[in-house]
Amino acid sequence: MKFCTSCGSAVELRIPEGDDRERYVCVSCDFIHYVNPRIIVGCLPVYEDKVLLCKRAIEPRYGYWTLPAGFMENGETTGEGAARETWEEARGRVRNLELYRVFDVPYISQVYMFYRCDLERGEHAVGPESLETDLYTEDAIPWEEIAFPVVRETLKDYFEDRRRGEYPLAVEEIKFRRPAPKS
Amino acid sequence: MKFCTSCGSAVELRIPEGDDRERYVCVSCDFIHYVNPRIIVGCLPVYEDKVLLCKRAIEPRYGYWTLPAGFMENGETTGEGAARETWEEARGRVRNLELYRVFDVPYISQVYMFYRCDLERGEHAVGPESLETDLYTEDAIPWEEIAFPVVRETLKDYFEDRRRGEYPLAVEEIKFRRPAPKS
Repeated sequence: MKFCTSCGSAVELRIPEGDDRERYVCVSCDFIHYVNPRIIVGCLPVYEDKVLLCKRAIEPRYGYWTLPAGFMENGETTGEGAARETWEEARGRVRNLELYRVFDVPYISQVYMFYRCDLERGEHAVGPESLETDLYTEDAIPWEEIAFPVVRETLKDYFEDRRRGEYPLAVEEIKFRRPAPKS
Repeated sequence: MKFCTSCGSAVELRIPEGDDRERYVCVSCDFIHYVNPRIIVGCLPVYEDKVLLCKRAIEPRYGYWTLPAGFMENGETTGEGAARETWEEARGRVRNLELYRVFDVPYISQVYMFYRCDLERGEHAVGPESLETDLYTEDAIPWEEIAFPVVRETLKDYFEDRRRGEYPLAVEEIKFRRPAPKS
């Protein structure tokens, strides 16, 4: 950030009065620009004994598989955002959303929220950000081609919980990048 | 938002290519400024049969009681943010944090996340954003002077759950403003 969104003058990093950390403050009008973590909302859509995955048509992780997820937008709830992303990326309609996994990713200032849900009629199709979409049983999941640690963790946890028949919420922290090997 | 943070030129609201909603886009360098929901993290600090509340020394809701909570900062986890706010507002140290209530507040593009936790040794003191801090049993809570609906809901739910001995997570939506009457 170099310029003030309010008056267009330069900003500088300094600690505003009464604050305890550096913010981008306008040198002219003193407007303080707060920068806060962003929320990524997504779904774990389930149909029978399968989960819905999307093969990414965009960077990062082009060609790797993911759960439908994306940045939460203003004016929506976390559940609405998760359902919207599932429609946009995989043309799937979801219901019975239950918050299942929250991931703190402080090194990139992101919070992931995944909802476990039912995929209506098992229907899906390729959206503009996907190369393919498909339903996978646990054994068929391309584990070596999963796009992100948070997706791999959520999928692993889900199939374990499914065997137990209980799906407790968990909040986890992702502390470092683990690159997924491409097979 | 009037000016580009990257080059200082004017921005205009338009739908970027490949997007489906209006963003602030720079007329000169085409930089897209995404504006996303913000996270408020807080604690429900418990000591014996009491909860910790703070009387607000700042607007909005100056003079009303709240749970310690505030905007999540970059570089921290949701739990770290909730604990930080509890220290800043009430000089309380917390442990055994369990995510308890998530509130979607789409009309102001905010997501609240409250952690139920233990207040160490029941110790607390007034921080710079508080007029008073105190531990309250259910009967003693100043219900008519609670600052925000999300705080009132969380407190009510907590004491009900406490009688049952179970504290399931809930995700709720706050759909409209309910002004708290000042007695």
